[in-house]
Amino acid sequence: MTDATPSPSMGGIDSRTRAELVRSLVAGDRRFHELPRDLAPEEAAEIRRRAIEEMTRTPLANIAHHSLDVRRASRRNCENFIGVAQVPMGICGPLRIRGNYVDGDVYVPLATTEAALVASTNRGCSAIREAGGAVVRVEDVGMTRAPVFRTSGIVQTQGFLRWIREHEEDLRRVAEATSHHLRLLEVRPFAFGTTVFLRFRFDSGDAMGMNMVTIACDRVVTDLIEPMTGVACVGLSGNYCVDKKPAAINFQEGRGKRIYAEILLEAPILHHNLKTNARDLVEVQYRKNLLGSIAAGAMGFNAHYANVLAAFFIATGQDPAHVVEGSLGVTCIEARGSDAVFASIFMPDVPLGAVGGGTGLDTQREALAVLGVSPDPERRGDATLRLAEILGAIVLAGELSLMAAFTSQDLARAHEKLGRGALPEPPLPT
Amino acid sequence: MTDATPSPSMGGIDSRTRAELVRSLVAGDRRFHELPRDLAPEEAAEIRRRAIEEMTRTPLANIAHHSLDVRRASRRNCENFIGVAQVPMGICGPLRIRGNYVDGDVYVPLATTEAALVASTNRGCSAIREAGGAVVRVEDVGMTRAPVFRTSGIVQTQGFLRWIREHEEDLRRVAEATSHHLRLLEVRPFAFGTTVFLRFRFDSGDAMGMNMVTIACDRVVTDLIEPMTGVACVGLSGNYCVDKKPAAINFQEGRGKRIYAEILLEAPILHHNLKTNARDLVEVQYRKNLLGSIAAGAMGFNAHYANVLAAFFIATGQDPAHVVEGSLGVTCIEARGSDAVFASIFMPDVPLGAVGGGTGLDTQREALAVLGVSPDPERRGDATLRLAEILGAIVLAGELSLMAAFTSQDLARAHEKLGRGALPEPPLPT
Amino acid sequence: MTDATPSPSMGGIDSRTRAELVRSLVAGDRRFHELPRDLAPEEAAEIRRRAIEEMTRTPLANIAHHSLDVRRASRRNCENFIGVAQVPMGICGPLRIRGNYVDGDVYVPLATTEAALVASTNRGCSAIREAGGAVVRVEDVGMTRAPVFRTSGIVQTQGFLRWIREHEEDLRRVAEATSHHLRLLEVRPFAFGTTVFLRFRFDSGDAMGMNMVTIACDRVVTDLIEPMTGVACVGLSGNYCVDKKPAAINFQEGRGKRIYAEILLEAPILHHNLKTNARDLVEVQYRKNLLGSIAAGAMGFNAHYANVLAAFFIATGQDPAHVVEGSLGVTCIEARGSDAVFASIFMPDVPLGAVGGGTGLDTQREALAVLGVSPDPERRGDATLRLAEILGAIVLAGELSLMAAFTSQDLARAHEKLGRGALPEPPLPT
Amino acid sequence: MTDATPSPSMGGIDSRTRAELVRSLVAGDRRFHELPRDLAPEEAAEIRRRAIEEMTRTPLANIAHHSLDVRRASRRNCENFIGVAQVPMGICGPLRIRGNYVDGDVYVPLATTEAALVASTNRGCSAIREAGGAVVRVEDVGMTRAPVFRTSGIVQTQGFLRWIREHEEDLRRVAEATSHHLRLLEVRPFAFGTTVFLRFRFDSGDAMGMNMVTIACDRVVTDLIEPMTGVACVGLSGNYCVDKKPAAINFQEGRGKRIYAEILLEAPILHHNLKTNARDLVEVQYRKNLLGSIAAGAMGFNAHYANVLAAFFIATGQDPAHVVEGSLGVTCIEARGSDAVFASIFMPDVPLGAVGGGTGLDTQREALAVLGVSPDPERRGDATLRLAEILGAIVLAGELSLMAAFTSQDLARAHEKLGRGALPEPPLPT
Repeated sequence: MTDATPSPSMGGIDSRTRAELVRSLVAGDRRFHELPRDLAPEEAAEIRRRAIEEMTRTPLANIAHHSLDVRRASRRNCENFIGVAQVPMGICGPLRIRGNYVDGDVYVPLATTEAALVASTNRGCSAIREAGGAVVRVEDVGMTRAPVFRTSGIVQTQGFLRWIREHEEDLRRVAEATSHHLRLLEVRPFAFGTTVFLRFRFDSGDAMGMNMVTIACDRVVTDLIEPMTGVACVGLSGNYCVDKKPAAINFQEGRGKRIYAEILLEAPILHHNLKTNARDLVEVQYRKNLLGSIAAGAMGFNAHYANVLAAFFIATGQDPAHVVEGSLGVTCIEARGSDAVFASIFMPDVPLGAVGGGTGLDTQREALAVLGVSPDPERRGDATLRLAEILGAIVLAGELSLMAAFTSQDLARAHEKLGRGALPEPPLPT
Repeated sequence: MTDATPSPSMGGIDSRTRAELVRSLVAGDRRFHELPRDLAPEEAAEIRRRAIEEMTRTPLANIAHHSLDVRRASRRNCENFIGVAQVPMGICGPLRIRGNYVDGDVYVPLATTEAALVASTNRGCSAIREAGGAVVRVEDVGMTRAPVFRTSGIVQTQGFLRWIREHEEDLRRVAEATSHHLRLLEVRPFAFGTTVFLRFRFDSGDAMGMNMVTIACDRVVTDLIEPMTGVACVGLSGNYCVDKKPAAINFQEGRGKRIYAEILLEAPILHHNLKTNARDLVEVQYRKNLLGSIAAGAMGFNAHYANVLAAFFIATGQDPAHVVEGSLGVTCIEARGSDAVFASIFMPDVPLGAVGGGTGLDTQREALAVLGVSPDPERRGDATLRLAEILGAIVLAGELSLMAAFTSQDLARAHEKLGRGALPEPPLPT
Repeated sequence: MTDATPSPSMGGIDSRTRAELVRSLVAGDRRFHELPRDLAPEEAAEIRRRAIEEMTRTPLANIAHHSLDVRRASRRNCENFIGVAQVPMGICGPLRIRGNYVDGDVYVPLATTEAALVASTNRGCSAIREAGGAVVRVEDVGMTRAPVFRTSGIVQTQGFLRWIREHEEDLRRVAEATSHHLRLLEVRPFAFGTTVFLRFRFDSGDAMGMNMVTIACDRVVTDLIEPMTGVACVGLSGNYCVDKKPAAINFQEGRGKRIYAEILLEAPILHHNLKTNARDLVEVQYRKNLLGSIAAGAMGFNAHYANVLAAFFIATGQDPAHVVEGSLGVTCIEARGSDAVFASIFMPDVPLGAVGGGTGLDTQREALAVLGVSPDPERRGDATLRLAEILGAIVLAGELSLMAAFTSQDLARAHEKLGRGALPEPPLPT
Repeated sequence: MTDATPSPSMGGIDSRTRAELVRSLVAGDRRFHELPRDLAPEEAAEIRRRAIEEMTRTPLANIAHHSLDVRRASRRNCENFIGVAQVPMGICGPLRIRGNYVDGDVYVPLATTEAALVASTNRGCSAIREAGGAVVRVEDVGMTRAPVFRTSGIVQTQGFLRWIREHEEDLRRVAEATSHHLRLLEVRPFAFGTTVFLRFRFDSGDAMGMNMVTIACDRVVTDLIEPMTGVACVGLSGNYCVDKKPAAINFQEGRGKRIYAEILLEAPILHHNLKTNARDLVEVQYRKNLLGSIAAGAMGFNAHYANVLAAFFIATGQDPAHVVEGSLGVTCIEARGSDAVFASIFMPDVPLGAVGGGTGLDTQREALAVLGVSPDPERRGDATLRLAEILGAIVLAGELSLMAAFTSQDLARAHEKLGRGALPEPPLPT
C-alpha cells in the first residue's frame, strides 16, 4: 500500500535524483510522461505528485492514499498516474432477483457522491424483496464498432456492399483470429452519398469488448476490406457504432446488454415500503416519464437510470462514460386491479464487462466479488450476464423509490392545500 | 485515516457489541441502515463491511483503505457507507487556456480506468499549448427544474399560465428566500392536453445547484402555486428539466454551463504533435462527427466528449450521471488555407459546481485545488466558471488527439494498401 | 373555363405558329419556359400540353380540364403550367367548435385520394357534435426564417450577437419596412464553432408568411447586418428555421400556429358514435400513441394528424409540404370516471394562411368560403386563426375516429378468440 | 364530364325529390352520408353541393368543375364527394436519368401552388441534363405495419417472440393468402414492459401497399397469432410501423423505397446553369444542410425534399401525407478538384405506388403515363421502381437549384458589402 509519505520501498533512486526529476517537471524541461522508463511506477507517481504539489501549492496527501497495484493501474488504466480519486461506496440490499443468472439475494455496492441515492435505492430493494423479487432477463446484444468508408458514389457503394455480403465468412475468420474471445454476429451496413458505415457486432464473452472489437475491425479493414476492394476506410469509428453518444441506432438495435426487469407491487408494499399508492404512482409515471420526456424531446423515458448506473459502474469498474448509453430506456408503471401496480424497466444499451478495463482494480474487484461475479472460462459470458441481471434489478429499485418519492410529496400536498385555489373556474364547462 | 485493520479509535464500542451487530446484519435481523444512530460512522462502516465479508466471503481490505472524512462522506454523500472505490488518477498538461477566468497554464487531473485516455488527452494538450492556447468562453445558463401540473384542459391551462406570468415576482421572492445562492432567471412553460410543465431556471452561483433548485421549486409550488391556483402539482420533476437524460430541450436551451473552446492548428503542429494533416482531419470530421452521427440518429456530434468528461467529473467531485448531458454537443474541424485547421467544441449542457456534492471530499478537493478552483463569496460563480473553462479546453484536447489518431491510422493504410483493390471499377463514369 | 379542345379564344396566334412552337418543343430546340412571352397563358399551356402529348403519346384531356384563372395560376403558383391535378373533395360535418374565432357549426371540405378518410373523420365530427363541441385554442407563434452566418470563432460570435441584441430596433425597422403585414417578434440566436443562426420570428397576419419573411430577412441581412458587422451571411435559410423538416426546435418553440383542441366523451357517445369504450381507447392510446411512438423514435405522438392535415391543406390552398411540420404533436386520451374519456390534440407547428399561396386559386377560394374564412383588414390575422381553430377540431375528429376503429377491432377479437391460446403459461408467477 | 350546371344526365331523380333531399341536408334531418344509396354518385355530389351552397351562401362552381369518374372517385377515394380541388400542374424537363429502370430523358409533371418551385426545379433539370444525367438507384424496402400486443411481462414476451420466430412460415402463408401481390419479407419485433410490437414488412409489388398490408396483418393476428398464443393485440397499428410520422426506425430500417441519386457537376455547369461555384455550394451545404439541421434537432438534412415530393405526389396520385416520411434524408455536396462538386440525395423512406390509391384518378393517370409508368404483371414492381428513380432525380434537381440560389445570393453580397463592417476586430488573434 502506498501513502503520501515517502516510503523506503522507493529507495530505488536516491533523493537527489528524485529532487532533480521533480525540478525538471516543475521547470517544464520534462513532461509528465517523460520520466525515465526504468523508474518504479510508485516512484514515478510520487515524483509527479511532488511536482504538482510544488507548482500548484497543493498537498496531495489524500490522492496519494490508496492501495492500488500501481504497476498494473498505471499501465492498464491510467497514464501519468498520480494516485486515486476516492469515491464513497455504500451498500444496498438484500436485493432479491429472479433471473436466469441470479436466483436469490445479493448485496449491491454503489459508489456515489450524491446524498440520498443509496438510501433511496435501498428502499426500492426492500419493496422488491417484499414483493418476492424482481424478474430480470438479459439479452446479449454484443459490442459494436462501425468503421466508415469513402466510395465514389452509389454504384461503387452497391458493389462494395455486395462484396461485404459475399465475404462475410472471410470477415469472420480474420476478425475472430484477433481474439479467441470474439464471435462476429453481424455486419450491418448503412450508406448514402459517398459514405458507407459497416456496423460490426461481436459477442465478446465476459469482456465489455470495446477495445478488442476495435482491434478486430482494424485487422479486418486493413488486411481484408481495403486491399480487396480498393475502398478507403476513413476512420475505424464512424460514429455509427455508437460509442458514448445517445443515439437512435443503439436504442433500436441495442448494444452491449439489453436488460428487462419488472415487479408486481401490491397495495401494502406500496403503502408500507414506498409510502405511496397505485393511483399516484401511475399518474406521475404518465406525466413525467412519458409526457415529460416527450415534451423534452428526450431519448430516456425514465426517472433516473443514470444515477444508479453511474454509481454501479464506478463501484464495479465499468467505463463511466457508458452511462450516456445506459441512460436510454423506458420505465413503465401500470395499474393492476384497483390498488396494485406492475412496474418495469427496459435498458436497450448497456455495455458491461466482468473482465478487462477497470474490473481488475483492487476495490472494483472486491465489489464484483461481493456480487458473486467471477468469470469462468467454462461458462463464457455468464459472469457478465449475472452482472447485467443485478444491474437491471438495482435500476428498477432506484426507479421505484424515486417515483414513489415524487408521489408522496404530491400526496401530502394534495390533502393539505388543493381545492383552496384562487384561480377562477374555467369559463367553459370542460 | 481509516484502514481495514480494526483500529483502537473504534474503541467506542466493545468487541462483543460489534460482533453482535455484525451477526444481526448477517442474519437479516437488522438492515444496513438500522445500525444504532450513536455509533461512530467509522464503526458503522466497519460493521457493515464485516457483515458483507462474512455473507459474501469477500475480504474488503481495499474498499476499507481510504482517507475520507467518514462522518462527512457518510452524511453528505453516501448512506450505508462501507469504504471507497479507488479510481486511478492521472495528470495532463500543462494545458494553455485563453479564457475569461483562466489565462495561462493549468494541470488537469483525470480519474479514469480507460487505458490511453490520459496519454491521448495529454497529447492534445501539447498541441494546444504549441498553438498558443485554447480560446474558451462559457455562458452560465443556470440550473433547471420543471415541476409538472395537471389541469382540467386548455382553458384552465391558459388561465394558469397567465397567473404564472403575472406573478413572476412572487415566484422569485419565494424561490430566492430558500437560499441566498439562488437567483431565478426564467420560468419557461410547456403545455398540452391536461399537462403543464414549468421549467424554472436559476443562477446557482458556484454550486451545481440541482438540490437547492429542487427545494426552491418545492417551496414555490407548495406555498404559492398550488394554494393560489388550485392546480395540482403531480411531481416536482416532470422530466422537462431535463436531468440526466439526453434531450432536445437541453441542447436548445442549455443547462448548467454552455461551453465553447477552439484553436487554430497550423501544419507543423498537426504534423509533429498530432501525427496528422489538415486534409485527413477534415475528412474524418466530416464522415464521423457529422455524417456518422446523422446516420446514427445521435444527439452528440463529437468523437468522445463523454470520456474526458467522466474522468474530469470523477476527479473533481462532479455528479458522474451528468456525463449523459455533457455528451451532447458539436465538434467542428474546418480547413484553413491549404494545410491548417480550425477546431472547436461546443457543449450546451454541462452541470458543474465548485461547492457541494462530491467537491468537498478529500481527494476531489485536492484535485480542485490543483486546478486553482476555490470559491470566493466576493466573486460569486467565478470558481465554477473557471472550472468550466478548463473543462472546455481539456475536452478540446481530447477531441483533437482522438480525431488525429483516426487519421494517422487511415493515412498509413492509404499509402500502403489502396489502389490495389480487386473490386471492379464502377460501370458508370461517375 | 378552359378545356382540352382548342378553343376560339386561343385565336391570338394562328394554327401554323402554334404547330411550329409545338414542334420546336418536341425537337428540344426550345425549352418549356422559353415560349414567347407575349403568348396568352392559356395558349402557352396548350402548346406545352400538345408537345408532351406528342412526345409521350399521352392524351392529357383531363389535366387540361379545369376552371382556373390560368393567368393568375401560371404567374403566382406554377410555372410551365399545363393544367391541373384534380383531387377529389368530400365534405365533413357539421363540426361543432367552441373556440375564440369559431363558436358554432362548420362544414369542412377535405381533398383526398385515400378511401375512408372522409367517412372516418365525419364520424369523429358526429361524436364531437354530440358531446357539445370541441374546445379549441390557438396561439399565433409566427413565421420564422433563420439566416446562417460565418464568423472567425467564439470571440467574433459573441461580439456579433451583442451587436444583434443592441440593434434589435434597427432590425425591426428594416424588416417591417418590407411589408406592412409583418411585425418582428423575436430574434433567437444559436451559435457554435464559426457558425451563427439567427431565427427571426414574425407575426405575418393572415398570410402564412414564408415568402414575405424571407424577403424581410434578405433586406435586414443585406442592408444592415452584413455591412454593419462585416460578418458574412452564408445562406438566407440555415435550416434552423426549420421549414418543412421535422425538427425539435419547431416542437419546442412552435412555428406558424400552435393549436390545442379537446373534448370530453361520455360512455353513450363512445358506444353509439364511435363503437368503442373508455377502457379500450385509453389502452390503445397508451400502447400506440405513447409507447409505440417512443419505440419508433418518432417526433409525432399521434395516430394520423398528417392524413387530415394533407386533405385540409390541399382543399384550402395551404402548402402541402408543410404537412411535415404539422405531423408533429401529441394526442392524449385520458380516462374520466369509470367510462368516459378526455381527449386532446396538440399541434405545435402548423404554418397556415388565409391569403397568398394557393388560397387565391378558384376551388381553394370556394373551400375557404365554405369555412367562413375571409380576411378582413380590420381584424388582422383573425381569418387565419379561424382557419386554425377549424383545423384543430377536424384533426381531433380524425384522431377520435381512427383510434376508436383500432379498439372496436380489438374488442371484437377479444371476445371471440382470446383465452384459447396454446402458448404455455409463463413459468414465473408474474 | 361534370359541370356545376345541372345536367340532363342527372335526370335519374326528379327536381322535387332533389330539392327535398337538399332541404333535408340543410335542415340537418339527414347527414351528408345518408343520401339514398341508389342515387347516382353525380346526383349525390350535386345535392351535397347545393346544400352547402345554401347553408354557407357559397357558390361552388369551380369545385364542381372536373372530369373525374365520380362513381370511381366517390367509392375508392373520397366519401361525401362534392367535386375537386384543382391543383395547378407544371412540367419540368427533360430530366436525364441513368438508372436501372429509366435510362434516358423524362418530363416530370409537378402539381403545386408554390411560385418558383417548378421554375427552380426545371433549372436543376437542365444542370443534370448538361452533366450527363443523374445516376439513380432504388432499393425496394417494402411496406410495413406493426400491430401492438399486450403480454403479462418479459417471460410471456420472450415466449411470444419465440413462438413468432418458430412460426414465421405460418405467418407468411396466412399473410400472403390475403393478396397475391404480397410477399412477407420480415417480422421485426420490439418489446419492453408488457408491450410487444411486430413490424411486418412486405414486398407489395407495384402498389404502395399500406391497405393490403393492414389487411394481411389483421388476418395473421386474428386467425393465427391471437388464437394460438392467447396474447391480445391492442391495435393493428402500434406506431412502430411508422406511418406518416417522422421516426428514427424508418430512417434506420427504411420504408417503401430507399432512393439514391447523384451527379458530378463541373465548373461550367455550376456557373452557367446554376449561377454558382463549387466553393460557395459546399459552404452552404455545410452550414445549412449539416450544421443547421444539427442545430435544429432535425431529422431531415436537406434543403427541401418535401417541396418537390409534395408536388410530385399530388401530380401522380400518391398519398400526400407520406410527404412526412419522404422529408427525411440527407443531401451531400462535396468538393471535387478545385471547382467541381459531387452532389447526392438519399431518401430512406418513400412509400410509392403505381397502382391503387389516387393513381387511378383521371388526371393522375395521365401524369403517370407522361412518366412512362405503367404496371406490367410480367414485370412486377418495375413500374413503381421506375417512378422511384424519376422521383430521386427530380428531388436532386430541386436540391441543386435551391442550394445554388442561396449561394448566388450570398455571392452577390459578398462582393458588394463585406469587408466594410463596423464590428470591431476580435480582441484575440484567433
